[in-house]
Amino acid sequence: MTGSGPGSPLGLHRVLDPAGVLPQAAWRLDASPALWPDEVLVRVERLNLDAASFRQLREATGGGAPAMRAEVCRIVAERGKMQNPVTGSGGMLTGVVEESGPGSPLGLAPGDRIATLVSLSLTPLVITDGLTGWDGRSEQVPCRGHAILFGRSIATVLPADLPGPLALAVLDVCGAPALTGRVVSQAAGRAGGSAPVVAVLGAAGKSGSLSTVAARRAGAGRVIGVVPSEAEAATLRAAGLVDEVVVADARDPVALAAAVRGAGGPAAVTVVCVDVPGCEGGAVLSTADGGTVVFFSMATSFTAAALGAEGVAADVTMLIGNGYVPGHAQLALDLVRREPGVRGLFEARISEETRGNRPGLEEK
Amino acid sequence: MTGSGPGSPLGLHRVLDPAGVLPQAAWRLDASPALWPDEVLVRVERLNLDAASFRQLREATGGGAPAMRAEVCRIVAERGKMQNPVTGSGGMLTGVVEESGPGSPLGLAPGDRIATLVSLSLTPLVITDGLTGWDGRSEQVPCRGHAILFGRSIATVLPADLPGPLALAVLDVCGAPALTGRVVSQAAGRAGGSAPVVAVLGAAGKSGSLSTVAARRAGAGRVIGVVPSEAEAATLRAAGLVDEVVVADARDPVALAAAVRGAGGPAAVTVVCVDVPGCEGGAVLSTADGGTVVFFSMATSFTAAALGAEGVAADVTMLIGNGYVPGHAQLALDLVRREPGVRGLFEARISEETRGNRPGLEEK
Repeated sequence: MTGSGPGSPLGLHRVLDPAGVLPQAAWRLDASPALWPDEVLVRVERLNLDAASFRQLREATGGGAPAMRAEVCRIVAERGKMQNPVTGSGGMLTGVVEESGPGSPLGLAPGDRIATLVSLSLTPLVITDGLTGWDGRSEQVPCRGHAILFGRSIATVLPADLPGPLALAVLDVCGAPALTGRVVSQAAGRAGGSAPVVAVLGAAGKSGSLSTVAARRAGAGRVIGVVPSEAEAATLRAAGLVDEVVVADARDPVALAAAVRGAGGPAAVTVVCVDVPGCEGGAVLSTADGGTVVFFSMATSFTAAALGAEGVAADVTMLIGNGYVPGHAQLALDLVRREPGVRGLFEARISEETRGNRPGLEEK
Repeated sequence: MTGSGPGSPLGLHRVLDPAGVLPQAAWRLDASPALWPDEVLVRVERLNLDAASFRQLREATGGGAPAMRAEVCRIVAERGKMQNPVTGSGGMLTGVVEESGPGSPLGLAPGDRIATLVSLSLTPLVITDGLTGWDGRSEQVPCRGHAILFGRSIATVLPADLPGPLALAVLDVCGAPALTGRVVSQAAGRAGGSAPVVAVLGAAGKSGSLSTVAARRAGAGRVIGVVPSEAEAATLRAAGLVDEVVVADARDPVALAAAVRGAGGPAAVTVVCVDVPGCEGGAVLSTADGGTVVFFSMATSFTAAALGAEGVAADVTMLIGNGYVPGHAQLALDLVRREPGVRGLFEARISEETRGNRPGLEEK
């Protein structure tokens, strides 16, 4: 699959070390701009670091702009991709298509302004401007350089009717509402008449707020939004996205389960959008027997979830939140277009990030 | 929930550090033998360390009996439970009920010989014999001491018709066949007539072999067993559990996917029972669009699974293998009673372990 020839749609021909693994699992990729026939070359305009990676970088460097810039540039120079070596996660990017190989199946043309829908953790990337336009305060990083898309690296043309930073923030988390909608719709089909109760942990965040409206549209009977503070509760109430807002620490399993029960739970579907470790037990205890927990947080521990559910004899289905669901990008963009409450939350967060005020509890 | 009173069915009253978390997530438990009203006191006879923990202990200590004994005793003395601090996992135990609190809902009576079906990682435990009866070579550890069961700590009375070590080995992995059966049955219902193809990675192991027969009984059309070596392939063929045996390294995603395709795949359901890291990408690539991957391996990385599936635009459902499914213990014991091929594999493995010959690739 490597060497001369058509290239691998998975990008295996770009893997330098270790041999034989997928680009996401690789330590180092070949990010040279010479295209294989089925690849696409993108002129990068902006990186969107994922929340877990951004937080780690800020804590490790102290958060100053020079240190943040240097660390991201160092990682990309070393690995040929922006994959945080501590969190394993990446983010996504926007840019303009510069060249589309003759064998590319992506349907992109030079000049298209696009966002990638695959993680930066598998996207070959070169940074050429030292990130001088970045103040280190926002996950959205102005950036010059180039990136490579493989045959199976999905991307979407940015919508003309939404501001770029808004579209980028929505597309970054677009897997969550799509999968939430699917799971809630299945639960509604099984429930035999009674519309399922859905609890969203981190409901005022980006993936969380999108998931609340996706759940309602998919047939949820009652949507419970869990947030960590009174301030977020006020924001979520004002947005009018959920039937009940409760304040609870998602890391305190007993308090969380009691709060969800008090608000009409336990939930048939619990959606975890809180990007801090230690929420597995509480999510399981908040979920009814026969129900489903969907973990979108990159801070989820596989072992803690598996042994935690077994340890309390909880018959719940636990899903690893797959960031890819067909149609996820259009679904998420449509939700933001049609739900002023969600759009308002996104715009407020983008504005906060631009001003350098970070909310205490970030979502994926 | 703590202090005087009826005790928490989750065992919260036994958590010493840190406060407020579930026993599984706790660093240290109170393992004193004085019972709360809904608890059960068990005289321990045998611990069954989980494969990931046993392997880690063997590698860290060199595998000698004195070092293995000392390390397990040290962990249990320090934490009040046998939870390997590196892997986070535990195992299970067998013993005899010594006292059943007046408020215990478990239905156990003094003298019952039982196996716990919750992890050692949340079970208060005291070892009193220094594990002098253990040669350090087997996951099954003769042990004297006591353990505590909470109101929600499920346990099962050991069957009279099966040897103790066999029953213990089966019960240790009984969540896998139960959940596999459920998922395959759902897939068969959805398929609309065509029986689903099921691939089991690590099919000659304990959880793997049980999963193959559970899959067939749940309506699988074709069961593909993947093993890492020709020796295991011969064993699996002789046992007659699967339709096709293929040899592949589950950590090599491209080779694994090609092998599964060559054997009649991609799979509608892929079951991961291989207890080594790095199998996420191969499992995803071996699974058909719309299919399901069930991860039972404690070596699974949440991030690698989530980003790996997204990175190859794979629309697959990924399940965290919950060790608890109602009826799981009886189902697994019945499979061993009715399927001589499975029983033979288990007996051979137990005999190998007793002789100190460890297979190269262990299952959960």
